[in-house]
Amino acid sequence: MKTIKLAIIGGGSSYTPELMEGLIRRHHELPVSEICLVDIEDGRHKLDIIAGLTERMIAKAGLDIKVNATVDRREAIRGADFVLTQFRVGGLAARARDERIPLKYRALGQETTGAGGFAKAMRTIPVILEICRDIEELAPNALLINFTNPAGMVTEAVSKYTNVKVMGLCNVPINMHYSIARMLGVKPEEAYLEFAGLNHMVWVHRVTVGQEDKTGQVLDMLGNGASLNMNNIAEEPWDPELLKAIGVIPCPYHRYFYMQQAMLEEELEAAESGGTRAEQVMKTEEELFKLYASPELNEKPKQLEKRGGAYYSEVSLQLIDAIWNDRKSVQVVNTRNNGAIRNLPDDAVVEINAVIDANGAHAVSFGTMPPQLASLLQSVKAYESLAVEAAVEGDYTKAIAALALNPMVPDMAVAKQLLDDIIEQNAAYLPQFKRG
Amino acid sequence: MKTIKLAIIGGGSSYTPELMEGLIRRHHELPVSEICLVDIEDGRHKLDIIAGLTERMIAKAGLDIKVNATVDRREAIRGADFVLTQFRVGGLAARARDERIPLKYRALGQETTGAGGFAKAMRTIPVILEICRDIEELAPNALLINFTNPAGMVTEAVSKYTNVKVMGLCNVPINMHYSIARMLGVKPEEAYLEFAGLNHMVWVHRVTVGQEDKTGQVLDMLGNGASLNMNNIAEEPWDPELLKAIGVIPCPYHRYFYMQQAMLEEELEAAESGGTRAEQVMKTEEELFKLYASPELNEKPKQLEKRGGAYYSEVSLQLIDAIWNDRKSVQVVNTRNNGAIRNLPDDAVVEINAVIDANGAHAVSFGTMPPQLASLLQSVKAYESLAVEAAVEGDYTKAIAALALNPMVPDMAVAKQLLDDIIEQNAAYLPQFKRG
Amino acid sequence: MKTIKLAIIGGGSSYTPELMEGLIRRHHELPVSEICLVDIEDGRHKLDIIAGLTERMIAKAGLDIKVNATVDRREAIRGADFVLTQFRVGGLAARARDERIPLKYRALGQETTGAGGFAKAMRTIPVILEICRDIEELAPNALLINFTNPAGMVTEAVSKYTNVKVMGLCNVPINMHYSIARMLGVKPEEAYLEFAGLNHMVWVHRVTVGQEDKTGQVLDMLGNGASLNMNNIAEEPWDPELLKAIGVIPCPYHRYFYMQQAMLEEELEAAESGGTRAEQVMKTEEELFKLYASPELNEKPKQLEKRGGAYYSEVSLQLIDAIWNDRKSVQVVNTRNNGAIRNLPDDAVVEINAVIDANGAHAVSFGTMPPQLASLLQSVKAYESLAVEAAVEGDYTKAIAALALNPMVPDMAVAKQLLDDIIEQNAAYLPQFKRG
Amino acid sequence: MKTIKLAIIGGGSSYTPELMEGLIRRHHELPVSEICLVDIEDGRHKLDIIAGLTERMIAKAGLDIKVNATVDRREAIRGADFVLTQFRVGGLAARARDERIPLKYRALGQETTGAGGFAKAMRTIPVILEICRDIEELAPNALLINFTNPAGMVTEAVSKYTNVKVMGLCNVPINMHYSIARMLGVKPEEAYLEFAGLNHMVWVHRVTVGQEDKTGQVLDMLGNGASLNMNNIAEEPWDPELLKAIGVIPCPYHRYFYMQQAMLEEELEAAESGGTRAEQVMKTEEELFKLYASPELNEKPKQLEKRGGAYYSEVSLQLIDAIWNDRKSVQVVNTRNNGAIRNLPDDAVVEINAVIDANGAHAVSFGTMPPQLASLLQSVKAYESLAVEAAVEGDYTKAIAALALNPMVPDMAVAKQLLDDIIEQNAAYLPQFKRG
Repeated sequence: MKTIKLAIIGGGSSYTPELMEGLIRRHHELPVSEICLVDIEDGRHKLDIIAGLTERMIAKAGLDIKVNATVDRREAIRGADFVLTQFRVGGLAARARDERIPLKYRALGQETTGAGGFAKAMRTIPVILEICRDIEELAPNALLINFTNPAGMVTEAVSKYTNVKVMGLCNVPINMHYSIARMLGVKPEEAYLEFAGLNHMVWVHRVTVGQEDKTGQVLDMLGNGASLNMNNIAEEPWDPELLKAIGVIPCPYHRYFYMQQAMLEEELEAAESGGTRAEQVMKTEEELFKLYASPELNEKPKQLEKRGGAYYSEVSLQLIDAIWNDRKSVQVVNTRNNGAIRNLPDDAVVEINAVIDANGAHAVSFGTMPPQLASLLQSVKAYESLAVEAAVEGDYTKAIAALALNPMVPDMAVAKQLLDDIIEQNAAYLPQFKRG
Repeated sequence: MKTIKLAIIGGGSSYTPELMEGLIRRHHELPVSEICLVDIEDGRHKLDIIAGLTERMIAKAGLDIKVNATVDRREAIRGADFVLTQFRVGGLAARARDERIPLKYRALGQETTGAGGFAKAMRTIPVILEICRDIEELAPNALLINFTNPAGMVTEAVSKYTNVKVMGLCNVPINMHYSIARMLGVKPEEAYLEFAGLNHMVWVHRVTVGQEDKTGQVLDMLGNGASLNMNNIAEEPWDPELLKAIGVIPCPYHRYFYMQQAMLEEELEAAESGGTRAEQVMKTEEELFKLYASPELNEKPKQLEKRGGAYYSEVSLQLIDAIWNDRKSVQVVNTRNNGAIRNLPDDAVVEINAVIDANGAHAVSFGTMPPQLASLLQSVKAYESLAVEAAVEGDYTKAIAALALNPMVPDMAVAKQLLDDIIEQNAAYLPQFKRG
Repeated sequence: MKTIKLAIIGGGSSYTPELMEGLIRRHHELPVSEICLVDIEDGRHKLDIIAGLTERMIAKAGLDIKVNATVDRREAIRGADFVLTQFRVGGLAARARDERIPLKYRALGQETTGAGGFAKAMRTIPVILEICRDIEELAPNALLINFTNPAGMVTEAVSKYTNVKVMGLCNVPINMHYSIARMLGVKPEEAYLEFAGLNHMVWVHRVTVGQEDKTGQVLDMLGNGASLNMNNIAEEPWDPELLKAIGVIPCPYHRYFYMQQAMLEEELEAAESGGTRAEQVMKTEEELFKLYASPELNEKPKQLEKRGGAYYSEVSLQLIDAIWNDRKSVQVVNTRNNGAIRNLPDDAVVEINAVIDANGAHAVSFGTMPPQLASLLQSVKAYESLAVEAAVEGDYTKAIAALALNPMVPDMAVAKQLLDDIIEQNAAYLPQFKRG
Repeated sequence: MKTIKLAIIGGGSSYTPELMEGLIRRHHELPVSEICLVDIEDGRHKLDIIAGLTERMIAKAGLDIKVNATVDRREAIRGADFVLTQFRVGGLAARARDERIPLKYRALGQETTGAGGFAKAMRTIPVILEICRDIEELAPNALLINFTNPAGMVTEAVSKYTNVKVMGLCNVPINMHYSIARMLGVKPEEAYLEFAGLNHMVWVHRVTVGQEDKTGQVLDMLGNGASLNMNNIAEEPWDPELLKAIGVIPCPYHRYFYMQQAMLEEELEAAESGGTRAEQVMKTEEELFKLYASPELNEKPKQLEKRGGAYYSEVSLQLIDAIWNDRKSVQVVNTRNNGAIRNLPDDAVVEINAVIDANGAHAVSFGTMPPQLASLLQSVKAYESLAVEAAVEGDYTKAIAALALNPMVPDMAVAKQLLDDIIEQNAAYLPQFKRG
């Protein structure tokens, strides 16, 4: 029987044990024989801790899976069936800077959709493209499953500039799905949610249970304080009149767009008091690694749940299962638009319901978004696509133009100041921007 | 447990026993409790024969299903869960005229995509819209599954002019799927075929088995004489250089477009010798009904297979199963484009892979067709959409303009002659065309 | 010989004398026989002053033109050849409120493209539609030339909701044309400027003199401090790197988009010290009307130039001349897009080069804008079109959604607060917004 | 003062004296100082006759224009202000073959829009691209005015594959303009005709005289037998019901589309009796050159009018005048679509009203064509664009696919036969088609 080789780039991540737990649980449908945990030299210590815990977990389960912790990326990729990317260029220290810089200019430092996410994209895209060159050479049939944020932009870079088969994943849709099912008192598989949008900016356009349309009911509940609780986003409540103006179900991250000012005030305050989100995460991480290092620990510790990646393992393993076993099931992924949302170009990467089979993702067509959604969608996608170009080409002027299109950036003059600051504080990671 | 009421409009069709056989076989997943076979007064005799045979088949299977043969359409529709339409306005006699008229003008009489199909659409669309008014009133949640040809145009008329949930079905895709799987030596479920186009003008753009692309191999086999055998279409062989110019896998009916002249010569010759297709079918029908009437017969007779509707029951029951049991499986249906094929409007009905669930069909996005396919696609869809408008509005001028867009009609001057002839010979069925 | 009847709605405006001076100068090509100055009862005093001055100017020129100052709008419109609209619902007092309200929320009060312009549009659109009902009835062949701001939105309302032939006019393009010609040391008619965008958000995409492309040279000069001086916009200088990122020549009002923060700081400061723009204009107006009232004055006084409407008469009379004399000349107007800018719908009103003849405006096709321009363009047009709908329908929810799309409004939550404040402070003028 | 150098490729054409007569008449606004008549070695005899007549005409007018008859194309092009192309690869003999081959397959041999035009395009496009390489090098600012048929396709090839500024010209629009003005009893400059379509397939969508719409009246007159008489097209009369179905005014060549069968019968008959059009023209040409050669002749002879190029000189010199004198006037040319017709891509070449200035043509936007026109338009443009690609790439498969899209070609199987025949009979001229 054919077995699976898995390469995990950024294997030293604190999230890895959750993925391992899932792999062990699903071993009967996903016959994994080899797991390569890859990280960079600087992350060797964490990588070894994770590898140790992983081996103890596998031993406890009595499975025969080879675990290989390495800094040799090419060896890990060679012959892999799936490559998972969950690395973070510059680590949490870089993320902390990403979150702090924009606040100087009264702009949101949000690490995925905001100016912080822009900085992260500039650092990450050159690296993912290098990884893809290795995949093209050493594992041309492998499927790349990307978790690295900003997942939409990183996936679009791979999709546009390489021949690698790729899907971007996020745990926001599955969390919305489970929360909404819970709100409606039905099992998740009984509810059908029509997702369409961009990563961290995805709407649910319709919720049905059997033949019944429950969208209005869900909007009412949200307006009455029900929560799509994801514990890493501040839960500014939704005003029912805003929900009416939006017309469909926003995702938690939509607060950064629709309630930008309130979120900005919160971030400014948090930065003053408890520190930015990255600074808080650093503390959690330290505690987690202390736990992971304990030779007695041979399972995923409860404390990992505080970290924020709920159902991260669920969503990625469902996907691998659908591909490996050619299930033709519907899941939410970041993939090529291909006409599914008429308001966007075919080659834009979108977050959308898709049929998953052995060949990858086939987006389910959505049609045309109404103007109040389309306008935000097109702006953010225009920002993303131009930013991807700027990252690949190292084009300073294009980077200003891109950043100015981000709705969380006040204007183009501020965009330029932000960019200069980002380039200066990320000198080591942005060699592509050489100004003349 | 909820059970299913089925209304079959055109229940006196010779195809019905095949559907019944399928229903009996799938009874565990499709709990049908009532079947209403509806026909018009003129078809009463055939209807009674079919109803008798159906009851004998059910009795033999030992099932508890009420069979109701009626000319009261409204009673049949009231409270139905599914309405199936397989009627033929004017019967085979009208079809025979449809096939004969165009031949006078050296135009193909093809009864679905040709000028014959145009005549049929003009007769059928006003009737299906009346049926839909009944469904809107008496069974607003019912799903209409339309087999009546030209299925793409009839389904588009329902989709654009009524609130009825509808899908159009055809057995061409399933036949292609089974034939291609057989050619490749795999089981049907192992092959994934990317269908996108229009009814009786659908291409398979890609065939994959697991991760392997087999499209080129299938084209080679077709060029070497392999057949997607559907026994109601003359099997003019495909020239490999034409297949190269098409670039994807054509359906058997594509011969009427790509080899129009040869098909025309064949039809002219057939009309001279054995009679048109309708004239041949009339004989088969007569024999079938003789068999059906025999009180000893309590199963579908083998001879039905000659009639041409291979897998007709398979495809419709798979669909009903996916809807009733909310399976979210991928099937090929005629449904609203919704952006799936970028070259066509959102509200055009297309034949395409779709996810089927309790709410109906969600087309899988295809993207943009290359110019050599797009041009034919757009012409034929423009013809269809304008013809639907002409049928609904009874607009003589629009009907000329529509018919002139059909690639099987030589030019607009001929279109006018054809239309005048069709209106004259269908006077009883085309009251909407009142010329000033 | 056919002569011209002109109806000027808002005839009591301080700008009218400039228009009169132009009419007198061009009398040989524009045979005006009757001018109706229309205003509302509240504006009677100013109207009479303007009428008096107009009559003295005509007398001085020795012309035979009937001047009719009236509050009977229907009489003025009856049989008119041209209707000019330059009225201001609520007067300068309302404008002052428009400019003050947004500043509370750190949003620009800009009276055309900002939240101030939104308030103005809500007041103005119902009135212009009433005027158009009169035109449809009493002067169906008249051409409506609209100067009332926000000119793009007001013109779009007329174009979408009435049968009146309309063009929107603005003096920004002619000022840019003259300034750029001066910068290049050529006569205006020697330079060809490719204008395409929206009112108060129009770019010059190319400047040519004969066959030579001068766009780069103009951008360099602008980056070095050259001014497209329009004295009613604060002249924040252009950073050359921003100009590079924009890639084409922005109009002076683009500062409100590209340098939003700096403009906001200036407005906040001005509101504290000298008052908002409206408050400054009130003083200028008072002085002007004192001058106008003097029985000795029989020409346009020099002081009018301070008011800001440079070349306002030039641009409107060039247009009337082109229409009346069927000149087929190219001018910049606000008119139906009709495909000229592919990134926008056909029925959007755009500001663009157009061929002007007896039948109106025919936009010169532009093609596809690059993403960094298209994104802003589409956002602002989506805002405008949705706001027009909200104004016509009195739809509170749509008004929130519209305002949230305006790039000068921080987010949707702020949009709601702004809207509530606008409705409260404009109670007398916004009867259409009845909240349930 | 700057004077004009003119290079005429195909200078030995029998049309040249008409152009010369026009140039002489317009000498005050078009200061031509040098005319280079270029032809190939095989055409030397005719070229010398034309050059002689030209010199006698100039002498008679007492002008100082240098005439240079040469086979050195590069010398002629060097420093030219305008390059006019009116050459014919393979001469009338090739045209005769173009017209004969398709008739074998019951397809129209029409030398521009039919299969004959396809063959001509295949021969011509490689040559025009060579000429353009010379222009890019030796006269980069020159404007290429192309008359060589099929003018739409040849112009599109230049527009897509070279940097040469180009416009395609045809005398159909000016003939329609003059005929329609005559039918309406007005002067040409009093009527405005909205042209939009493709070369030899252009419709007039609206005719206005001042503010009055005369389209319906013109359609009525056409339906009653009025003629847009161009004496090289058989005048099959228009059925009023066809005109109603078309909805706008067709050009004379539209007969090849809308009355294809009747035109085909006529061509078949003509080929049997008097010979194809090319064969008739050969006789006319022979007579003309006899006349031209006479040393007494120093003016354009009346007999030239029979040749069919009425107003050919008018339309080209109006254009050169508008460019040279930067007139910004509206004329009908073949130029880049640029969004003007929304149903076609930006880079498609269309025949449309355009503003002409020193920089070339700026199409006047048209908007969206209704489906019955759009479908034909898109099919023919898809044919043209794919055929241009096939000609440039020498791609046999693409050539089949292209030809199959031409509405005058019965189907793809016939397209292949036609192509094989065309390649065989044009071996000397189609080196690019090397089959593997």
